[in-house]
Formats: sequence, structure tokens, C-alpha cells
Amino acid sequence: MKIVFLFYHHMTALDLIGPHEILFRLPGAEVYRVAKNAGPIETESDHLQMIAEYSLSDISQADVLLVPGAGNGTTLKNEPEILNWINAIHQTTLWTTSVCTGSLILGASGILSGLKATSHWAVLDRLSKYGAKPTTQRIVEDGKVITAAGVSAGIDMALYLAARLTERQIAEGLQLGIEYDPEPPFNSGSPHKAAPQLVASLRKRLQEKFEE
Amino acid sequence: MKIVFLFYHHMTALDLIGPHEILFRLPGAEVYRVAKNAGPIETESDHLQMIAEYSLSDISQADVLLVPGAGNGTTLKNEPEILNWINAIHQTTLWTTSVCTGSLILGASGILSGLKATSHWAVLDRLSKYGAKPTTQRIVEDGKVITAAGVSAGIDMALYLAARLTERQIAEGLQLGIEYDPEPPFNSGSPHKAAPQLVASLRKRLQEKFEE
Repeated sequence: MKIVFLFYHHMTALDLIGPHEILFRLPGAEVYRVAKNAGPIETESDHLQMIAEYSLSDISQADVLLVPGAGNGTTLKNEPEILNWINAIHQTTLWTTSVCTGSLILGASGILSGLKATSHWAVLDRLSKYGAKPTTQRIVEDGKVITAAGVSAGIDMALYLAARLTERQIAEGLQLGIEYDPEPPFNSGSPHKAAPQLVASLRKRLQEKFEE
Repeated sequence: MKIVFLFYHHMTALDLIGPHEILFRLPGAEVYRVAKNAGPIETESDHLQMIAEYSLSDISQADVLLVPGAGNGTTLKNEPEILNWINAIHQTTLWTTSVCTGSLILGASGILSGLKATSHWAVLDRLSKYGAKPTTQRIVEDGKVITAAGVSAGIDMALYLAARLTERQIAEGLQLGIEYDPEPPFNSGSPHKAAPQLVASLRKRLQEKFEE
């Protein structure tokens, strides 16, 4: 089972590492970390660098493709080589997946037309631009495309996907292994729960970043 | 506010990246990623490499120190230089923190004697070896030491710490930013909830790894 994680400059580290921590542990998983060019990638997470071992040209097929998001507003529209690669790999996958604004990148690559999808809550409406149907859920599955909501939703999505790829008991074992029995100390993780002024200011900031 | 993340070979990537994604966003945060020697560190998460920009000798003080865990059984007991550094930095911190079996490393460095602490559920009892009081909670604060339970508990701990370092509203804004409104698809994230055979086999596997 070939699981491919796309790395790119300024991606959000947790978008990728959450699902990575779960999916690499699946029986039979072969994980590939791929960037436009192999080497260190600087994330938007305080410039933390992580290394991609493969270049786009090394990978022509995937059973699972995962595309993380970036809070800086990129949809990789200035990186046609990456967008074309995503589109080509998608033709070969069992599952094509994204976390957070990674769904806008899937959209820009042309593969969300007519599909239900989700994204970070603050920019969910931007999916319409790519012909997708913005859907307010933490995990959205439509055909072979699974999109997750903002950043931390990648963990929930990966457990869901783990069960689809193998069996429920394996996913439950992985959940136990990472002790994922969440107890957030506050109750402000969604725009329906957080203080309205927090929601308004964050929406404004992210919407501005994702303006064309 | 100087926030220092310890990197070491075979650490669990998510133990570190969960809190990192939250804490680097705090107003005034200056983040330092430090390893025995600066450079790429190979995590236990499918050999994913992340880069530490600083060596131990570069860092002599921290407001916050975070030590991640490793599922391979290491307590860094064969790395006295790192353990001594942890002990020395601890003398300078406002908060010394760990995720998962990182608490066993804090223990090995000699700073948990007489303190309540937690760890990954499967090896919680090992804390006694270091004079700590094993405590079954997701986040345990005793004096200036905050320990978190297994892997994903680092996210909860970091939000709790964010509020202690700044104010609750800022922590709530960060929770909203990473859309941390968890919806695990299964209910097996703790030994009290998971199937007994999953609990037994994982406990056996981890206990063996952490045997002396």
C-alpha cells in the first residue's frame, strides 16, 4: 500500500504530521514523502524544516495521496508542475485526500469539480471557485476523495481512512497507540463554539490571505 | 518568551509537532529546536527527518522546555550529555514539559522526584522508578512541571500551557485556528474504552520496549 505525502514550502506541519503518525503504522504501508524537488522543505510552522526524500518525477502512482494545507494563502496556482502532478497521481489512487486548505489545492488541480468537500472553516466558501460543493463537516468523502477540515481534523480523517484501508480494529488499535482520547481544555475549536469576535477576526485574516 | 523543543533520534514526530503547531503562534514566542548536535534528526515516524537548528551547547536557558517521547523504549539513559542538559535547563525554566514517554526522560534526568506525573498509559507505572507519582490524567501539573499522556495529548497540553503563558482568550483563538474540535471516528483512545485484547497486546509490546 503506497501512501504518498506531498510536501511543499510553507505547508502547515501538523496538517501533514497528524495523518502521517497514523498512516505509516498501517500494516503493509510504504510511505513516500515527495516535494517538487527532494530535500528540506521549510514549513510555515516557525520555519521548521522537514525533509522530503522524493521528487515529483520519482512518483507516478499512489494508493493514497495526502495534500496538506497552508495558512499563508497558497493554492499552489503558481506551481503548475505540482498541480499537474496531483491531477496525474489522482488518476491512479484508491483515495485522494487533503487536510485543511489542502482541499483548495486539490480544487486548483482540477479534481474537485462537482464533488462535496470541506476545508478550514474560515475559507470553506472558496471551494466553490473550483466547482466543489462546500460542506460543513469534519470529514467529507465523495467518490474516492476525502477532505478534512482545519489542521487537527487530519487526525480524525486519518483514523477514518485507516479503517477504510484495512479494518476497524486496526484503526482502533492505532487510536489507542496515540492515546487519542481528546480532552481540549477549552471549547472553542469550531466557529459555532468560539467567541464571535475570535471567529470574525480569524475569518477576516484568512479570507484576506486567500484572496486572489 | 523562549520556547525550546528537544529533538533526538527516534523521537515520535507528533509528540513534538502537536505542541509546536500551537506554541510557536503565541505572541512573543521565540522558538528554538535543539538536538545534541544541530542538523537532521530521524524520527521513529517512518524515519521522517526534521531539522534541529541548534546544538545543546547553544542553549543555556529556556522559559519553556518540551521533551517529546519515543515508542522505541528510549529514556536517553545512554545519552548523559542530553540528560544533564535537561536538568540544567530545568533550573532556568518557567515550565518544563513532556509529551508521552518524554516524562520518562524527564525522570531519567532526575527532575521528577516526588512529583506527580503522567506518561503513555501503557508505561505509566515506569515513572515510579524515578521517584515520580504515576497519575492517570491527560495533563498533570505539579510545580512547574507539566506532563502529558500519550502522543496526541500534547495538543491538549499545549493549549492548557498557552493559557498559562498568556491568557485564556489567546489559547481559545489558537484552538479555533487549528479547528481543534475533535470528532474521533472511534472510541478507543484510552485503555478504559478500547477492546481489552487491543489494550493487552499494546501494553505488552510497549512494556517490553521499555524494559531495562
